[in-house]
Amino acid sequence: MSGATLRSSRPDPSIAADGVDVGVDVGGTKLAVIVLDQEDRVLGQRVGPMEAAPATEVVRRIVAATDEALDDAGLTRLDIRGVGLAVPGRVDPGSGRVRHAVNLAWIDEPAGDLLREAFGVPIVVENDVRAATLGLHRRGLPLATDDMAYLNVGTGISVGAVLGGRLHRGVRGMAGELGHLAVSSDGDVCRCGLPGCIEAIAAGPAIVKRATIAGRRWPDAGSVFTAAATGDPVATGVVQRVGRILALVVHGLVAAYDVNRVVIGGGVTRAGTAFLGPIEHELDRRRAVSVLAAEMLPPDLVRLVPDDVDAGAMGVLAILRDELQLAASGRPTGEVSPA
Amino acid sequence: MSGATLRSSRPDPSIAADGVDVGVDVGGTKLAVIVLDQEDRVLGQRVGPMEAAPATEVVRRIVAATDEALDDAGLTRLDIRGVGLAVPGRVDPGSGRVRHAVNLAWIDEPAGDLLREAFGVPIVVENDVRAATLGLHRRGLPLATDDMAYLNVGTGISVGAVLGGRLHRGVRGMAGELGHLAVSSDGDVCRCGLPGCIEAIAAGPAIVKRATIAGRRWPDAGSVFTAAATGDPVATGVVQRVGRILALVVHGLVAAYDVNRVVIGGGVTRAGTAFLGPIEHELDRRRAVSVLAAEMLPPDLVRLVPDDVDAGAMGVLAILRDELQLAASGRPTGEVSPA
Repeated sequence: MSGATLRSSRPDPSIAADGVDVGVDVGGTKLAVIVLDQEDRVLGQRVGPMEAAPATEVVRRIVAATDEALDDAGLTRLDIRGVGLAVPGRVDPGSGRVRHAVNLAWIDEPAGDLLREAFGVPIVVENDVRAATLGLHRRGLPLATDDMAYLNVGTGISVGAVLGGRLHRGVRGMAGELGHLAVSSDGDVCRCGLPGCIEAIAAGPAIVKRATIAGRRWPDAGSVFTAAATGDPVATGVVQRVGRILALVVHGLVAAYDVNRVVIGGGVTRAGTAFLGPIEHELDRRRAVSVLAAEMLPPDLVRLVPDDVDAGAMGVLAILRDELQLAASGRPTGEVSPA
Repeated sequence: MSGATLRSSRPDPSIAADGVDVGVDVGGTKLAVIVLDQEDRVLGQRVGPMEAAPATEVVRRIVAATDEALDDAGLTRLDIRGVGLAVPGRVDPGSGRVRHAVNLAWIDEPAGDLLREAFGVPIVVENDVRAATLGLHRRGLPLATDDMAYLNVGTGISVGAVLGGRLHRGVRGMAGELGHLAVSSDGDVCRCGLPGCIEAIAAGPAIVKRATIAGRRWPDAGSVFTAAATGDPVATGVVQRVGRILALVVHGLVAAYDVNRVVIGGGVTRAGTAFLGPIEHELDRRRAVSVLAAEMLPPDLVRLVPDDVDAGAMGVLAILRDELQLAASGRPTGEVSPA
């Protein structure tokens, strides 16, 4: 794999003696691996491409990337204390099974078991957006609060929430699955079957499709935002509609959860201010008309994820450590054996 | 006050020795008082009318109704261990101040202090819908689950949520304030200033207003539902629109919170199946089209609050007891002094 490697200086051997944790974020186009010591220092890191592949093949690549990241830090697999995996799909955190991951073409894959077999250490598996939400929360960035939502806008749309400092999963692990909430009567029919879903209006493919219907062709959603920023009227119409629907989502998240921060990230948000502008414009309209909306939607509510944060990998590392601590709390020696 | 009294048999004197707790639910039209012993038995109860009045006057009426309910049980104010108050408005639970209660015409009233002065015992104050949510949860009714939302549809619309067995308040105590979420482009302008708010479409006054605009006059929302049930086309159009918007709210609550039960209550829901029918009809449409919607919205998701449950008073009693237990946990004798 091509390795845009970023690593800290070679660690003190005493650190390795405590063991390291490995965080893995697998997306439809990207694989990221982070090796973290017990002092939260990044000892090794690997970023490479990814595409839809069988789970056994993806695990093989995870192992290879992890070996490289460990090697950079002068470590081996024997130094690994646990591995956390974030995947874009429905996950059963208890068993580590991935029930459905569209972008990887996975249906009911035992990702946790495969990783446990490969590494022989405790494994946690979590949905990537929920993991990223916790990662954004735990890394203590200036944008993190104890009551925050993370809105991911990419090929799909979904939301994670930290409420009172804790990741909210919901009764079936589906909390924040808002992409297929049908909110509009004038929306295109979504791939889920419903017309007017949030994803069918504001996700990347929907943005390109809407522009195409209006007679224009752009290669991706980012190009539509760029065209809108330079005054193209078709692109402007499309992104204004996206802004209105995402502002509704932001307002709805605040009304439901009562969070004081909504962080937005994902592929489509790389358009930056061209992406955020139409959302803030619609939020401003709501603030200007309604005193209650102005109170619920303070000016510093919405922030974009900083580009360089691999929140998904950091989030599963946080979940992994909570699990290891929980397991260790029953053992006075602090020893943790593979789950 | 007129007293539709309901009470259990005269209690064993040993019960009174442990003290009783008083739950009070003040609405725009109704005052309910419940006296509960430590074994969760209702020893006394009073229900009477209420209207907008100064806080001092409302507290005077609460005290009078409580005295009557205590007298029925052969008890006096000296037997009271604590009082919980549920009010329809914005509450600061810490101080017991009611920041705004439209139906009582209260602005920044020190309700907690006034009750503490009157009774000389610990007081808790909570928003009525959030209190009712916890009340529905704690009373262990067949409809209660550990992850449930309560949607109140009356003069206004708001939501409470119990997530993982705990009442979710949010960072400003505004979680579930969805009434003024503007969701529709064809909605009337709401009293909050925004067009298309959920309240401006589906709350009681909006239902009557929409029928009036269509050239018909009904005295209240219940009459519109009754007319729809007997086939009136204007009423049917209005209630179908209400059903569509409330089904969107139900779907949105499940998507955001991932609860497995949505209980609906409030004045408008007294229309019963005539109220619930259009909501289930729209949910069925979503279930039929989308596999994901069918999974998120199981057939037993939505339930109406049983008529005879005073969930608000029961809910503040639950909050009061949690607070008393918390206060007592610092004192090995179990003694609790007024806050």
